[in-house]
Amino acid sequence: MASRVLLNELPAHGELQGHAAALRGASISDLFAADRQRAEDFTLTAAGLRLDYSRQLLHRDARAGLLRLAGQAGVEDGIRALFGGEHLNNTEDRPALHTLLRAASGDGQQERFREVAGARARMRDWAGRLQRGEHRGYTGAAITDVVNIGIGGSDLGPRLVTEALRPYRGTIACHYVANVDPADLQDTLRPLHPATTLFIVCSKSFRTEETLANSLSARRWILDAGAADADLERHFLAITSNLEAAAQFGIRAQHCLPMWDWVGGRYSVWSAIGLSCAIAVGWAHFEQFLAGAAAMDAHFRDSPAAHNMPLLLGLLEIWNCNYLGASNHAVLPYDNSLRRLPDFLQQLTMESNGKGVSAQGAPLDYSTAPILWGAAGTMGQHSFHQLLHQGTRLCPVDFVLPLTTHTGLAQQHRQLVANCLAQSRALMVGRSLEEARATLLQRGLGAADAARLAPHLAMPGNRPSSVISMSALTPAALGALLALYEHRTFCSARLWGINPFDQWGVELGKEISAQILEVLSATRPAQGLDPTTEHLIAAWQEAQSGIDQGQ
Amino acid sequence: MASRVLLNELPAHGELQGHAAALRGASISDLFAADRQRAEDFTLTAAGLRLDYSRQLLHRDARAGLLRLAGQAGVEDGIRALFGGEHLNNTEDRPALHTLLRAASGDGQQERFREVAGARARMRDWAGRLQRGEHRGYTGAAITDVVNIGIGGSDLGPRLVTEALRPYRGTIACHYVANVDPADLQDTLRPLHPATTLFIVCSKSFRTEETLANSLSARRWILDAGAADADLERHFLAITSNLEAAAQFGIRAQHCLPMWDWVGGRYSVWSAIGLSCAIAVGWAHFEQFLAGAAAMDAHFRDSPAAHNMPLLLGLLEIWNCNYLGASNHAVLPYDNSLRRLPDFLQQLTMESNGKGVSAQGAPLDYSTAPILWGAAGTMGQHSFHQLLHQGTRLCPVDFVLPLTTHTGLAQQHRQLVANCLAQSRALMVGRSLEEARATLLQRGLGAADAARLAPHLAMPGNRPSSVISMSALTPAALGALLALYEHRTFCSARLWGINPFDQWGVELGKEISAQILEVLSATRPAQGLDPTTEHLIAAWQEAQSGIDQGQ
Repeated sequence: MASRVLLNELPAHGELQGHAAALRGASISDLFAADRQRAEDFTLTAAGLRLDYSRQLLHRDARAGLLRLAGQAGVEDGIRALFGGEHLNNTEDRPALHTLLRAASGDGQQERFREVAGARARMRDWAGRLQRGEHRGYTGAAITDVVNIGIGGSDLGPRLVTEALRPYRGTIACHYVANVDPADLQDTLRPLHPATTLFIVCSKSFRTEETLANSLSARRWILDAGAADADLERHFLAITSNLEAAAQFGIRAQHCLPMWDWVGGRYSVWSAIGLSCAIAVGWAHFEQFLAGAAAMDAHFRDSPAAHNMPLLLGLLEIWNCNYLGASNHAVLPYDNSLRRLPDFLQQLTMESNGKGVSAQGAPLDYSTAPILWGAAGTMGQHSFHQLLHQGTRLCPVDFVLPLTTHTGLAQQHRQLVANCLAQSRALMVGRSLEEARATLLQRGLGAADAARLAPHLAMPGNRPSSVISMSALTPAALGALLALYEHRTFCSARLWGINPFDQWGVELGKEISAQILEVLSATRPAQGLDPTTEHLIAAWQEAQSGIDQGQ
Repeated sequence: MASRVLLNELPAHGELQGHAAALRGASISDLFAADRQRAEDFTLTAAGLRLDYSRQLLHRDARAGLLRLAGQAGVEDGIRALFGGEHLNNTEDRPALHTLLRAASGDGQQERFREVAGARARMRDWAGRLQRGEHRGYTGAAITDVVNIGIGGSDLGPRLVTEALRPYRGTIACHYVANVDPADLQDTLRPLHPATTLFIVCSKSFRTEETLANSLSARRWILDAGAADADLERHFLAITSNLEAAAQFGIRAQHCLPMWDWVGGRYSVWSAIGLSCAIAVGWAHFEQFLAGAAAMDAHFRDSPAAHNMPLLLGLLEIWNCNYLGASNHAVLPYDNSLRRLPDFLQQLTMESNGKGVSAQGAPLDYSTAPILWGAAGTMGQHSFHQLLHQGTRLCPVDFVLPLTTHTGLAQQHRQLVANCLAQSRALMVGRSLEEARATLLQRGLGAADAARLAPHLAMPGNRPSSVISMSALTPAALGALLALYEHRTFCSARLWGINPFDQWGVELGKEISAQILEVLSATRPAQGLDPTTEHLIAAWQEAQSGIDQGQ
């Protein structure tokens, strides 16, 4: 792969710095006054989603500069390379073909597509058999509960999708266990029955520490309930590319669905890693979820830059972070069933783009991925929104808003929608000191009290946000939404010069953890670590002896 | 209240800027090499908690400067004023006496303490009656499930405590509903039975929009199941200071427990707002929770600055944010049952200190509260830790670590502990380019490949973290932990010159929401709003008509 030019070496970089300097004192409300078509022309639709970015702090000239930047960075070449299966994951010499997982045809990737189609057929088969009660546990009773054991991409995506599509679910309840803390598994299994529970072990390598530990505990739970060794296989499926390790665990090949090295964990919910979702909502809905993502793929691949929704979101990220100085990005879904969207996006964006060197290994002297955070609206309004409105930090916000509800409670849902629209508007318009004073006088305060309190009630406003809305949170809309953020992450990576498909930074922690575990297991002396680690180990040992003494 | 001097006007401010400039290129590991007592002397214990801050990027001189800063800012006077009941919440002319809620005696606040003791007696009575199955619903069956309806401080604290103390729970299951999105209530009620469910409506004003909407839906759910109007009162308690509004809703005074205007919502879990916790774990455990917080209160009130744990945490926040330039703060509890701690702390810190003016209304020209975020370890290791280790942003981390487990699965818990210790160590030591190259060569890579990949494997290290550990996550330890962060938030507020007990910034959004709700309810025309809001309302209307047409 040819060395790419870095962000701050692109010709448009200086121009954008100039726009940012000029806009830093500007008011978004004034931008509307100066441009009567702004609301229309800073809105676009794709794959059932509507993006309104008219409340971002940029004007047409800055947007044009950003589009030039994208051209100079070769983002469109990157998009072609992504869909074309080029080895964009250059440090691991692999393509990143998650788009193939939701494609309707192979299109240049026939061999891989045949494998995908085969896996889909097996997923459909398993989802159907479980939904129809045809797969039975060791007592002969039908499976009622599925527990997905995985962590990171093998957990966050499936968990989000199953919760978000709750109105579509069928007869099987799906649960998710991820943490190596044994409380996670124990709390999940407490209300379940071994005879009617099926585990899906999700680990590409079948070596993930947390997943293996929990799977071994799950196996013990089934055996302790009275199942024979030979019964175990009825209670375990695996999603893995390591058939040998799965077999050693006791899961035969017929119970293993594939993973491929050309799909990263955080891009894998569309693969057999999503099996629990397909079981929860049925295959037809899972196919709609794939089709929604495929519609976004087509939009991303075929749309010109100026109308390309993922690319524009990527450019807005660069604009806010590298030109306006934002260090974080808040995502606020105004739908309780999307409350885990920020967790999913944390992995997607921060594991992909939380890097300090370019794809070619050159140190970057500009900021890359911001801290992504958020919570379901209206929850945050009673928590951190105080800081969004009056804090000292620039926090660009994405509001995500389904415009209708599955609950049938239209009136209460209207309150939710009104709150979402109000927060976005309040962030922009703010409240001047004079307006604050007038408000307080209206409330009956005396002039001196009103003057004293006004600075506390005043809000600077001018805080940027976008609204991503959809008619309803259907499987297709959810698929499009997740694909939108995937491709946005890709575009940001191209602009920053990053390979978004590797994650070398997580290795050292694993290596050190293995060393420390040997010390805690008393198979290795504590020497050779640092004083702080040694003191912490001593504190841990003291706490254990407290237990041993029956404390 | 006398006007206080702002952070950047304090004499120690310049000295600290100098230390920060000198330390910015320094290595934390080198600080250990230069100071053999560092691990010991940068550790302190209080109320059963152990804070190790030796991996922060500061040395003894900088720490001494920070302590001078605290003296100059009058933090110790502030602590006396806090416990003395002075009106530190100056914009609302009230004291902030959450410490009284867990006190063993009134100590200058006899009248308020009598009310607290009376409320405690009633909480104890309700918790006991429910635990013993003596309170019955409209069919005469004993209550089995309690649903807490509240939002913000009426939700995050109780929810966290009930989940964190799960090993201590009794026979009643407690659930939490907060979001105005009707899906939240609907999903919670689905597995419950109206005849055996009791609702606790938590709203100081009894006017919180979300809480009222959910309470009305809950009432309908009970009535729809066949209860008579007269039966309703068996199914509702309220925690409120507005007895009149509660009575109008149908909750009589005997079923109302008090809230006081001298307790802020985010500091209220110790009051009757914590009733659901007391019901879940029993009064004796709830008392231990209060006692743990009281032990931290005593430490905070009586310890000299240099050994005062909350004050040191506050100074570290100021150091990292205002001198080293951090804009965020990650809290990573290595215990799955503390997974909601970051949510709780978001409200505590960002609603308290997410402000841009001083307590006296002067604009601040320095940064205040950072973005607080996090997730349960080891979940984040498979998600955002990539950015912690190799991203371009300074992310100070607090690791929170119970050293033993309630689960009985000691071996799996050891893995959890090893991971926590390893992450903190890896953040500090990093991996040099040369070490990365050697690691790759050891793995069998050729020299050219090792050289090419080494920049991706290298980690800068030198990233600050603290470890807050405790022998076990007991009720007392949890109480001490939450009180620790409360007081740390107070100390940071004093240093920034902020009133941490008001939240004027959330008002405007509520006002605008009421206006937009009238438009959505067609009782007001859409004019007078901005073009973006008007377009969003039109999109919402179009989506509704899609539903009306049976789409």
